[in-house]
Amino acid sequence: MIDVRPIRKGEGAALLKLVRELAHSHGVGDHVEATAEGLESALFAENPVVGCLLALVDGEVCGCAFWHRSFATFRGREVMYLEDLSVLPAYRRKGAARALLAGVAKLAREMNYPSIYWLMMGWNTAARKLYESVGAEIEENTCYCRIHGEALERLAS
Amino acid sequence: MIDVRPIRKGEGAALLKLVRELAHSHGVGDHVEATAEGLESALFAENPVVGCLLALVDGEVCGCAFWHRSFATFRGREVMYLEDLSVLPAYRRKGAARALLAGVAKLAREMNYPSIYWLMMGWNTAARKLYESVGAEIEENTCYCRIHGEALERLAS
Repeated sequence: MIDVRPIRKGEGAALLKLVRELAHSHGVGDHVEATAEGLESALFAENPVVGCLLALVDGEVCGCAFWHRSFATFRGREVMYLEDLSVLPAYRRKGAARALLAGVAKLAREMNYPSIYWLMMGWNTAARKLYESVGAEIEENTCYCRIHGEALERLAS
Repeated sequence: MIDVRPIRKGEGAALLKLVRELAHSHGVGDHVEATAEGLESALFAENPVVGCLLALVDGEVCGCAFWHRSFATFRGREVMYLEDLSVLPAYRRKGAARALLAGVAKLAREMNYPSIYWLMMGWNTAARKLYESVGAEIEENTCYCRIHGEALERLAS
């Protein structure tokens, strides 16, 4: 029994635990700098930029979908960006990811966003199967770029 | 002489003209649904999600950088996403793109964002050269995914 619902106030610690477990399963456990307070203050801010749905299987939090408001220049309006959709390894292949994706789509409709976009690693065939099955358009050969730390300082000065 | 500065109120029409010209140069002129009013109302909203820098050469608007607030789950904090960085074909190879990128980096520092991320098409060697030259990390083989229209409706229902 999969349940998908928005995170509630007071669940920041449960979310952080999940984020940590997900980071470990991705081999980047050391990269988690988030705190329960930080997550809650972003999620429950006035006019927040970011939102989160939780997936629960038999009452256990097993996955999450983070989305945030984005902006499509040519459309001149806000769209929805799905930042992260993750399910703990032990809970995979039960439909949780699909249920989270459907939950995000429902939210997009409620909030009058015309589209959702997100990134996928090219090697992730399980994700590709899911996304193709729901009718997503997939554009290959995009590169994800990032600048931070000293390089960002240099560029800014 | 390249000048980079935030867009000002009342420049929505000039921005729309630029967005249209850029769309034409990308062969997607028919896709522009933005209006001057829509762009201004998003850019000058209270607590806006999106911002825009203009590049001017000899006083002519020739490029823009749209960025918006984003959220890094593992970091648990907002970061900056560069949605669009474009310079009109006639004005390329004069340093305008680099000046826009530096302007975005300055903004990121002012707003205390630890990183900027963005997407690049794998075939865009001119962009790659610029981004590598400023020390950006580039992750290959990412796929850009999007769902909208009927597929989004189906997923939401």
